[in-house]
Amino acid sequence: MKRKITLKQIAKELDVSISTVSKALRNSVEISEDTKQKVQAFAKLYNYRPNNIALSLKNRKTNTIGIIIPEIVHHFFSKVIRGVELVANKRGYNVIIGLSNESFSKEVINMEMLANGSIDGFILSISKETLRQQDYHHFNETMSQGMPIVMFDRVVSDIKCDKVIVDDFNGAKNAVEKLISNKCKSIALITTKDYVSVGKLRTQGYLEALQENKITPEADLILKMDDTLDYEVHLEALESEIEQLFKSNKKIDGVFAVNELYALSAMKVARKLGLNVPEDIQVIGFTDGVLSKHSTPSLTTVSQHAQQMGEKAAHLLIDKIETEFDTEEEQFQTVVIATELIERESTK
Amino acid sequence: MKRKITLKQIAKELDVSISTVSKALRNSVEISEDTKQKVQAFAKLYNYRPNNIALSLKNRKTNTIGIIIPEIVHHFFSKVIRGVELVANKRGYNVIIGLSNESFSKEVINMEMLANGSIDGFILSISKETLRQQDYHHFNETMSQGMPIVMFDRVVSDIKCDKVIVDDFNGAKNAVEKLISNKCKSIALITTKDYVSVGKLRTQGYLEALQENKITPEADLILKMDDTLDYEVHLEALESEIEQLFKSNKKIDGVFAVNELYALSAMKVARKLGLNVPEDIQVIGFTDGVLSKHSTPSLTTVSQHAQQMGEKAAHLLIDKIETEFDTEEEQFQTVVIATELIERESTK
Repeated sequence: MKRKITLKQIAKELDVSISTVSKALRNSVEISEDTKQKVQAFAKLYNYRPNNIALSLKNRKTNTIGIIIPEIVHHFFSKVIRGVELVANKRGYNVIIGLSNESFSKEVINMEMLANGSIDGFILSISKETLRQQDYHHFNETMSQGMPIVMFDRVVSDIKCDKVIVDDFNGAKNAVEKLISNKCKSIALITTKDYVSVGKLRTQGYLEALQENKITPEADLILKMDDTLDYEVHLEALESEIEQLFKSNKKIDGVFAVNELYALSAMKVARKLGLNVPEDIQVIGFTDGVLSKHSTPSLTTVSQHAQQMGEKAAHLLIDKIETEFDTEEEQFQTVVIATELIERESTK
Repeated sequence: MKRKITLKQIAKELDVSISTVSKALRNSVEISEDTKQKVQAFAKLYNYRPNNIALSLKNRKTNTIGIIIPEIVHHFFSKVIRGVELVANKRGYNVIIGLSNESFSKEVINMEMLANGSIDGFILSISKETLRQQDYHHFNETMSQGMPIVMFDRVVSDIKCDKVIVDDFNGAKNAVEKLISNKCKSIALITTKDYVSVGKLRTQGYLEALQENKITPEADLILKMDDTLDYEVHLEALESEIEQLFKSNKKIDGVFAVNELYALSAMKVARKLGLNVPEDIQVIGFTDGVLSKHSTPSLTTVSQHAQQMGEKAAHLLIDKIETEFDTEEEQFQTVVIATELIERESTK
């Protein structure tokens, strides 16, 4: 078969970034005339078909929603998809899924591919790399071509679209308040580095709960993990960092972890060091995944209602798809899904 | 926007099955002339576009692989997808995913949608409903239109295509032999009803291991669960059935369960009844998911090497896509991925 050239190949051939190719093909003012001409000529030569050449497909409704998620082996994202599916099917829509694998260029490529006449709109959560690079042109240009986007969980305020977010700040704050009311005096935080908004908000919730209760936060008790590593694989590295935290701070009697795996690892390390959960250390995690329910002791956790997020996102998107807007009037909303503290055995 | 009519709507309007509509649109000899005319006229009236109308898109290579899986909230399928992705990306392909949700009609609809010029070939695992109905026309017709399919895990011998399967029979047999060599005298089996091939093969492996060791299988020790229920939700029903099994057969000292959730539930029920794992009852599960590693005690299990299955399936499919075949010469292969018994704390 004749091979179709991809964005990636054009970028490689011309030694520019995928983002540059994508912008050049869309005639973006951000790109120099010289580069634009080079990219466009090359694309033409190899019969590359960007979105706007597929205009003929544009007015055909597909009754399909595209979802782009950063990761597939992840209970939270699976549950969101289940929620989207449920509502989509009820309202006569199909769902197809693309994966960014936390990569900016894969996010761009997937959006290009799906926007090319296959779907009516996107539901997506932004990849970590995109958040780091702060390059959002592909979202804005997709929307400017008339295709609506609803973002969930990982969102940025710069982009004007409908959003469904978890109340990360209050979820974290309530969890830490629970530990304080359970008489914890020295509460550690296991979190991620700050570039992903949800990690940042959960850290703020932790700090706020301490301050409101007149507890001075201590830098020593805050462990920031580099979550670009895949900790399913690097579990030992994670555990050794937590062990170091516990050993250097013997007074720790409470742990708030911003995800399930960090919380379970904290319980495992505590057990290894001869500490009992919840008698010596109480632990609360974030995300109500399968592990929380089945661990021993079972984990007290902040549930994000992932399925409900997916359902809400699907309703917002389909409402947009099915309504004719005057672009000037277009209004966007951000729906905040409240969290819920599910108390199990890891707290008193 | 003008709404495009779907297969589902045509089926509903004409009060026939989706399968009938799909076959009628493809002029299948299985469907009466009368029905074919009715369906085709209706489809034409409402501008339905089946695959073969999109012939113009056919010769365009998309560099995209379509995956259809029965379920998204499932660690095994996520890992297979990760494997497919890995190889696909290396070989210059993208991946998009559709969900059948274990439904025959959703499987047909998803294949219709993706085959319509979006992808170069399919990797899929068959839905439970399709296996029950034994209606495979959509697979055969997709292939007869020149689009290759590779099936994994849940396959049927009637369909001629490349397949990647787990050695379910020997995986189960080895697990039960392990229990026998660990001195278990009375080994229970917790399995599914027989229509899904993998459950059947694992049951056969259990029986074979007993027979080779001159242990007479007892019907009382075999619990067959109806796995059309979602046991993440109906966990209590599952546990009460297992409790009944243990109470009626106090001699049980070993359990082989055909999936992770059944195995964990067996451990939970054992604990509830005051039995220690592995001292009083040894337990082995199938599928090395996240739960096995993190449960207490951690679960001895038969690993299926899901990621490796995905990698193999991707290689088989891309090889087919990139080779020109004379249809008469076309050869298919079935690759069997060996399982591995991962010993943890739930066995002696």
